[in-house]
Amino acid sequence: MYNNTFGNIFRLTSFGESHGKAIGGVIDGFPAGIAIDMDFIQQELDRRRPGQSAITTARKEADQVEFLSGIYEGVSTGCSIGFVVWNTNQHSNDYNNMKDVFRPSHADFTYTQKYGIRDHRGGGRSSARETIARVVAGTLAKLALRQLGVRITAFTSQVGEFKLDKDYTAYDLSTIEDNPVRCPDQELAKQMADYIYQTKGEGDTIGGVISCVIQGCPIGLGQPVFGKLHAALGNAMLSINAVKGFEYGQGFSHMEMKGSQQNDIFYRNGEKIAFRTNRSGGIQGGISNGQDIYFRVAFKPVATVLMEQPTVDIYGNETILKARGRHDPCVLPRAVPIVEAMAAMTILDYYLLNKTTHL
Amino acid sequence: MYNNTFGNIFRLTSFGESHGKAIGGVIDGFPAGIAIDMDFIQQELDRRRPGQSAITTARKEADQVEFLSGIYEGVSTGCSIGFVVWNTNQHSNDYNNMKDVFRPSHADFTYTQKYGIRDHRGGGRSSARETIARVVAGTLAKLALRQLGVRITAFTSQVGEFKLDKDYTAYDLSTIEDNPVRCPDQELAKQMADYIYQTKGEGDTIGGVISCVIQGCPIGLGQPVFGKLHAALGNAMLSINAVKGFEYGQGFSHMEMKGSQQNDIFYRNGEKIAFRTNRSGGIQGGISNGQDIYFRVAFKPVATVLMEQPTVDIYGNETILKARGRHDPCVLPRAVPIVEAMAAMTILDYYLLNKTTHL
Amino acid sequence: MYNNTFGNIFRLTSFGESHGKAIGGVIDGFPAGIAIDMDFIQQELDRRRPGQSAITTARKEADQVEFLSGIYEGVSTGCSIGFVVWNTNQHSNDYNNMKDVFRPSHADFTYTQKYGIRDHRGGGRSSARETIARVVAGTLAKLALRQLGVRITAFTSQVGEFKLDKDYTAYDLSTIEDNPVRCPDQELAKQMADYIYQTKGEGDTIGGVISCVIQGCPIGLGQPVFGKLHAALGNAMLSINAVKGFEYGQGFSHMEMKGSQQNDIFYRNGEKIAFRTNRSGGIQGGISNGQDIYFRVAFKPVATVLMEQPTVDIYGNETILKARGRHDPCVLPRAVPIVEAMAAMTILDYYLLNKTTHL
Amino acid sequence: MYNNTFGNIFRLTSFGESHGKAIGGVIDGFPAGIAIDMDFIQQELDRRRPGQSAITTARKEADQVEFLSGIYEGVSTGCSIGFVVWNTNQHSNDYNNMKDVFRPSHADFTYTQKYGIRDHRGGGRSSARETIARVVAGTLAKLALRQLGVRITAFTSQVGEFKLDKDYTAYDLSTIEDNPVRCPDQELAKQMADYIYQTKGEGDTIGGVISCVIQGCPIGLGQPVFGKLHAALGNAMLSINAVKGFEYGQGFSHMEMKGSQQNDIFYRNGEKIAFRTNRSGGIQGGISNGQDIYFRVAFKPVATVLMEQPTVDIYGNETILKARGRHDPCVLPRAVPIVEAMAAMTILDYYLLNKTTHL
Repeated sequence: MYNNTFGNIFRLTSFGESHGKAIGGVIDGFPAGIAIDMDFIQQELDRRRPGQSAITTARKEADQVEFLSGIYEGVSTGCSIGFVVWNTNQHSNDYNNMKDVFRPSHADFTYTQKYGIRDHRGGGRSSARETIARVVAGTLAKLALRQLGVRITAFTSQVGEFKLDKDYTAYDLSTIEDNPVRCPDQELAKQMADYIYQTKGEGDTIGGVISCVIQGCPIGLGQPVFGKLHAALGNAMLSINAVKGFEYGQGFSHMEMKGSQQNDIFYRNGEKIAFRTNRSGGIQGGISNGQDIYFRVAFKPVATVLMEQPTVDIYGNETILKARGRHDPCVLPRAVPIVEAMAAMTILDYYLLNKTTHL
Repeated sequence: MYNNTFGNIFRLTSFGESHGKAIGGVIDGFPAGIAIDMDFIQQELDRRRPGQSAITTARKEADQVEFLSGIYEGVSTGCSIGFVVWNTNQHSNDYNNMKDVFRPSHADFTYTQKYGIRDHRGGGRSSARETIARVVAGTLAKLALRQLGVRITAFTSQVGEFKLDKDYTAYDLSTIEDNPVRCPDQELAKQMADYIYQTKGEGDTIGGVISCVIQGCPIGLGQPVFGKLHAALGNAMLSINAVKGFEYGQGFSHMEMKGSQQNDIFYRNGEKIAFRTNRSGGIQGGISNGQDIYFRVAFKPVATVLMEQPTVDIYGNETILKARGRHDPCVLPRAVPIVEAMAAMTILDYYLLNKTTHL
Repeated sequence: MYNNTFGNIFRLTSFGESHGKAIGGVIDGFPAGIAIDMDFIQQELDRRRPGQSAITTARKEADQVEFLSGIYEGVSTGCSIGFVVWNTNQHSNDYNNMKDVFRPSHADFTYTQKYGIRDHRGGGRSSARETIARVVAGTLAKLALRQLGVRITAFTSQVGEFKLDKDYTAYDLSTIEDNPVRCPDQELAKQMADYIYQTKGEGDTIGGVISCVIQGCPIGLGQPVFGKLHAALGNAMLSINAVKGFEYGQGFSHMEMKGSQQNDIFYRNGEKIAFRTNRSGGIQGGISNGQDIYFRVAFKPVATVLMEQPTVDIYGNETILKARGRHDPCVLPRAVPIVEAMAAMTILDYYLLNKTTHL
Repeated sequence: MYNNTFGNIFRLTSFGESHGKAIGGVIDGFPAGIAIDMDFIQQELDRRRPGQSAITTARKEADQVEFLSGIYEGVSTGCSIGFVVWNTNQHSNDYNNMKDVFRPSHADFTYTQKYGIRDHRGGGRSSARETIARVVAGTLAKLALRQLGVRITAFTSQVGEFKLDKDYTAYDLSTIEDNPVRCPDQELAKQMADYIYQTKGEGDTIGGVISCVIQGCPIGLGQPVFGKLHAALGNAMLSINAVKGFEYGQGFSHMEMKGSQQNDIFYRNGEKIAFRTNRSGGIQGGISNGQDIYFRVAFKPVATVLMEQPTVDIYGNETILKARGRHDPCVLPRAVPIVEAMAAMTILDYYLLNKTTHL
């Protein structure tokens, strides 16, 4: 689960730079016998695709996946699944002026220091274009999880200071795709969109929070001690570009509540054991308890702003940078399917791991 | 990095239940030739030990580590280091009334569902007593990092609603051990301690936030894409009992700030490239940039409260639980060395990984 | 599966030097709910124990295992199982004259070169005493496999030039424990024992071959391409001290046979698909096919001979070495349970992995 | 190091079926800053390519690699290297008659049992065409090792009963490419080629042995206990299609030699410590000792014979199979670069691992 590989049993190993030939990867450990719904995969890629609305980057990329192995007559074979998404709309010249310059709060400086060499075009390997491989793998995971009755829904819950003021149970999550921000409160979504549009006009960028809910997750997922389910979800989310924080259940909030107030009380509901509340966020002792799993992910504003910024070049000389190119003023709308994809990969991986608990 | 193993190159595999014979583990991949300072290890264990002050549990445990291998004439040999910490002060009878009962917001229900069997005494494997193994391994990591000039300092920054109102640079971090809460503001520490003491008197518990700063970290640590340094740190922190959230740099806060305000501007400082700010938190593109790394970790209140709680037993019958035993009203003071230990293990692991970047 | 950890799902991480305090380890991923038969474990340790007959070393070691966790009321809990076997009969002084000397064909030179430091006593970490941890973990694996109907039987098939002249199906494998060599041909066993005894008298040592048969292995174990079942078995065997070769099925022999002669022909046997022969050795395409799995493991003579050998010391000076101490003239009799243990760990690991093939 | 991933630090994850769109993979952990010699890579692929001589299959495949990432301006960037080799000359119809039939001693039966689904065309994932990905990754490893002065040379040492009668030091290994069998004895090579050609004429196949020598390997490679260097090499070789055995140093031979005869005696050679012999095969205690590493790999005859064989179909009915298509009568000549590739990957991986031994 380091370098370019994610997962233990179900694993994605990805490759590709923003302006290279392609983004792609190898998916290993995907269960055999799952029908691959190509329309669904494309639909998920479209949710991530640039150029989908006025508040995303104007780049147009087809972003169609080509599977190269592991699927036979429309069904997964259990063998590794290779895939590529060709890069077709790269304007590498937009980056010529950045070849020798370190863009502030990007990975330019750290990659150069670490590797001594860097593909500067479009951010190279550090570009969020890499996440297209995650959406492909995550969508396969969703196809498998669908058979288990697991549903994963992410949504934008905060942009700048505009935020949902109730928890997810107060909203109709099926309405998320009704607006370009992917927020379940249509009125707030409009305000968020206006704010993003205005920020874009300023050449500036803005961050926010994506929330995610996992429903129907089987009880028992999670490995004790160092493989806690929420640690795996946190690791997954923190691997997404621009993410600065992760919390689940009560997280950083309600610190005034004491143990006696936060505990989720059990009771008997007919023949079943039930919980009166779900402040734990669906995970206790690192293991899913059958309640909804919910968590929040903080995104910083995109570092690329279309205004002049002082900086230095690779020789240490001070200079002024003005980014060109087509950039997102706010990544959250397009990051919603990425959060879902990472969650889906994690849950499927842990579902498979959990099968090894008993003989 | 799942189940009971943490790390890639430098790895801890731990074992032990709260009321079993011992807690221990195997440390693998520790560099050869490091002098093992036994006094320092005991000192760190003492920082985590129960019974150290009026605001922690009254349990008395010697918590002395016995190394069984991997050290020869006081120096690490490069071979695996086995160790045990014997359990000596267990009052298992305190848990007799919980044998068949699910304690609210503990791991009792999920472990039973997952494994079909559970050592209920003191929480068994899900007990935070397991973290003693982390402190042992983390302290070895600190010994190695000390040679590299890396310093890791955690401290309590919030208890209930009492919190530090400035960032870490405003405090003298060398004063943390001057109070039992391990907070660098002595006045606030006193209020926190009073509040914890009062909460203890109510039989209740309270959560909070631990902050951590890593200074002197070499540039270049972090593996691209799925092994980002902050994802590894987040995973490490989220594996600690009772942790509900992790954020680094600006995290969930300052969402009103735009990209142009958040970016850390480079400038030339003599012969070196420097940063005017450190809102990134010392990591960019998942790789350390040489600035201080800082992050925050949210802890929920301990689930064990010394008051009656309704619950169910393993047969599904409703019942009333009243915990006995000696418990912490607030884990934060004792969790400070655990946060440091997990950070130290992560940084050493990534330092070693980074050595493989070039031939 | 490197350094001191073996396995993917079912994993042993071991520690301990020959003359340190203890040998031990952590077993992770062992299924929950397995009854632990302590008598059986001791019986297996006794098969490996020194001093068991006139043809093994005269060292007397109790070799009793002490489990520290992961077992509750005699049943595995699914949590990590820590264990130690205390070293009690070490004569470290026997090695005083070797402190600064490189013993020929031992690991003294390579450990010193690699680590810059070495625990020379009894070979330190490179001693075969480490295999006691494997027998503990392997015996747990055997307990689980017994429930699946898998039987693993190793035996000595060659000592020096004395060798079985028929394949394993010609012998009654239940008679292996009837002689100290662990060979199913009682007459040959006597010759082997005499030869070993004579070699011991010369202060010399001798190698040979251990064969192993796995019966009742479920169909389908093995991961394609880089996780082939025979590659995992080979890796397991080659990790045992003094092993120089591994072959399965026809192996290095019968190279004169052509494809048309070697192929195992399918036929219909009642309602089942059956094989007319088993030249493949029970594995095809890296996956078990339900036939007996059989393989052979080559052991070199023990490097420690009780006669004078020229060598050099750590300063590069030439010197003469004469080993003292109590050593095995032939490791094969005691290595039989080690081969079985490594095979059992591998099969259980792959059985658990195989459960993740389908949703 | 299971499923479709090989290696620890330097890792190949491969994909692709024989008659799918492409074979390819992702190479992770390749050091940054290595110049990529494309001509050398193609030359190595050509050594493995079918149709290269009268004694290999008549299939014509271009086998050109297309790199998709991780290389910038001809130099490795340290990021993951994606690559594909397009399948262009597949005659899938040759396999129509095998769709429902289990070919003897192939993976058809075991894959079907394991996965419940199988891409039967050309063997699907179990085809040796997969090894093209290994040659790509192995050649990159060779490029890195060349900078370290490590040379890896494999050669055919036995075909059927024709075998070299001296050890590798008696031959000029630079002459291996002078004959299509890749044997350093030109006279014997001719006999082997004639024999293979004759076997081909019979529609039959033949196996043999490939030997390999690694020269210039640094001292100290190998991880103790479960990551011994020879265990890693054995695992690597046993993952190659049709391999049935691995031995290094004296291996299965010279069992009549006693310890006093097999030990490699140290002596002083000027300022250096040297060895009088190299029966150990360059590895002691699992760690390279600076001597030549040499090992032997047994290959069974290809299972596909062009004559009628009785078998069963997937419904259990007995039937007669007659393979069509273009097949190798003997894989050894083409397997020589594959053995080298796997050895190169292993050595580079262990070289990088070894860098983490000290701080």
